Amino acid sequence: MKTISENRCFGGVQGVYSHDSSACGCDMTFGLFLPEEAETGPVPVIWYLSGLTCTHENAMVKAGAQKWAAEQGVALVFPDTSPRGEGIANDEAYDLGQGAGFYVNATQSPWAPHFRMWDYITDELPRVLFNGFEVDEDRQAITGHSMGGHGALTIAMSFPGRFRSVSAFAPIAHPTASEWGRKQFTAYLGADESKWAAHDSTLLMRTRGFDGPVLVDQGAKDQFLHLLMPEALAEAMAARRQNGTFRMNKGYDHSYFFVSTFMEDHIGFHAEALYG
Amino acid sequence: MKTISENRCFGGVQGVYSHDSSACGCDMTFGLFLPEEAETGPVPVIWYLSGLTCTHENAMVKAGAQKWAAEQGVALVFPDTSPRGEGIANDEAYDLGQGAGFYVNATQSPWAPHFRMWDYITDELPRVLFNGFEVDEDRQAITGHSMGGHGALTIAMSFPGRFRSVSAFAPIAHPTASEWGRKQFTAYLGADESKWAAHDSTLLMRTRGFDGPVLVDQGAKDQFLHLLMPEALAEAMAARRQNGTFRMNKGYDHSYFFVSTFMEDHIGFHAEALYG
Repeated sequence: MKTISENRCFGGVQGVYSHDSSACGCDMTFGLFLPEEAETGPVPVIWYLSGLTCTHENAMVKAGAQKWAAEQGVALVFPDTSPRGEGIANDEAYDLGQGAGFYVNATQSPWAPHFRMWDYITDELPRVLFNGFEVDEDRQAITGHSMGGHGALTIAMSFPGRFRSVSAFAPIAHPTASEWGRKQFTAYLGADESKWAAHDSTLLMRTRGFDGPVLVDQGAKDQFLHLLMPEALAEAMAARRQNGTFRMNKGYDHSYFFVSTFMEDHIGFHAEALYG
Repeated sequence: MKTISENRCFGGVQGVYSHDSSACGCDMTFGLFLPEEAETGPVPVIWYLSGLTCTHENAMVKAGAQKWAAEQGVALVFPDTSPRGEGIANDEAYDLGQGAGFYVNATQSPWAPHFRMWDYITDELPRVLFNGFEVDEDRQAITGHSMGGHGALTIAMSFPGRFRSVSAFAPIAHPTASEWGRKQFTAYLGADESKWAAHDSTLLMRTRGFDGPVLVDQGAKDQFLHLLMPEALAEAMAARRQNGTFRMNKGYDHSYFFVSTFMEDHIGFHAEALYG
């Protein structure tokens, strides 16, 4: 593992690290904020999964999360959204290929060799994190924005017991019914739609739910509402009697201005579960 | 109007009054909490509509609302849920007739002469209130529990501009599709279902929505979930992009123990709109 940068931040350290990823077959970079408390022992951690076009860096510099994480004494990990580099498949569209891994293991050509973000986020990066830093594996929570909200919700529901709480900002909530989903699942997973269901938050909420609290925030002026389909998830959460809150916030769009506005609530929500 | 009782309460006065109602053709009783601030001028008001079997008294003594209303300087009005008395139609069932007005104007025999709770709540009682007490007609909010949550939501959406905010505790959310609704609407309004749509929160949310913030709390262990149908309302709120929050609260049932737990949040929510 290579340290790319470490900066003092709200009494803790904002680091950026890279490592050779066997899941993705390339170097992968991630951000990690450790609060001051990590100097004396393991701290709880919140995973933040980013959206389309993002690297590890966008949320790290724009979401304003470190202040609240420092107050709560929790770490934040900011993974990249796909494999990257020369020799790795890509597409001209912003929503396929590099920057658009969709948190799945691709099975189709040309994506299968490197696009294994599911394994990277759920298996490889956790080992890197828990072996290399003062982060407590028994106290994890997960959140994300847009494609990352999709990742957070699907991963949380797929690993019962691993995460104490899950939240999402404007998640891609029903990708098997949306062009943000159908296009990518066809490319990465193939045309057999039965393979897609494990990667749709609304379908997972209907069949499994989450054994802990859920918080979803959505902007009512989000320019991508027709692609996100929040109403499907809201209905599924209520129908399942899922312990959780779904908020539709007047006037907010899809940007980091929206994310940063509600970040304090989300970090506080997770801290309550992590310290409960 | 007759004063039945007045008690000092959190620095203000909890009163109970009765008056001759022309809408209902009988004496009607209501509770009114006025905070200390009402001694010097008009204060904002939150309407609290009660559920099946309740009178004006249940929420007044069991919901624990006065403490928070006193802190915020807002009045609370607690109407009865139906006409009452000898010579007024009734039914042996707890969910039809006296104590079960459903906030509609009945058009069918034997209910039509007295069961006019829509007019009573939206027209007659407001005049009594604003003429007789230091309550500010320009700053109104409305909430309710169960059948009263149904009343609060349907009335708020039917009088745009009257209420700055609306909330509900475990509302009967989709009565045209539930046996808490179909039975009563058939009795009060007749078999023509087109007459029912104006009294269904989910249908009104789909067609109109509410021009202000909405807060709905529901208990996940509510014994009446199958009759309340909160998932229909949650879906309609999200699909409309309604400014609002829908919370499913783990472990809570349908009782006043649930209502009182979340009362502080609801009074605070309304106060923000009333003073905004």
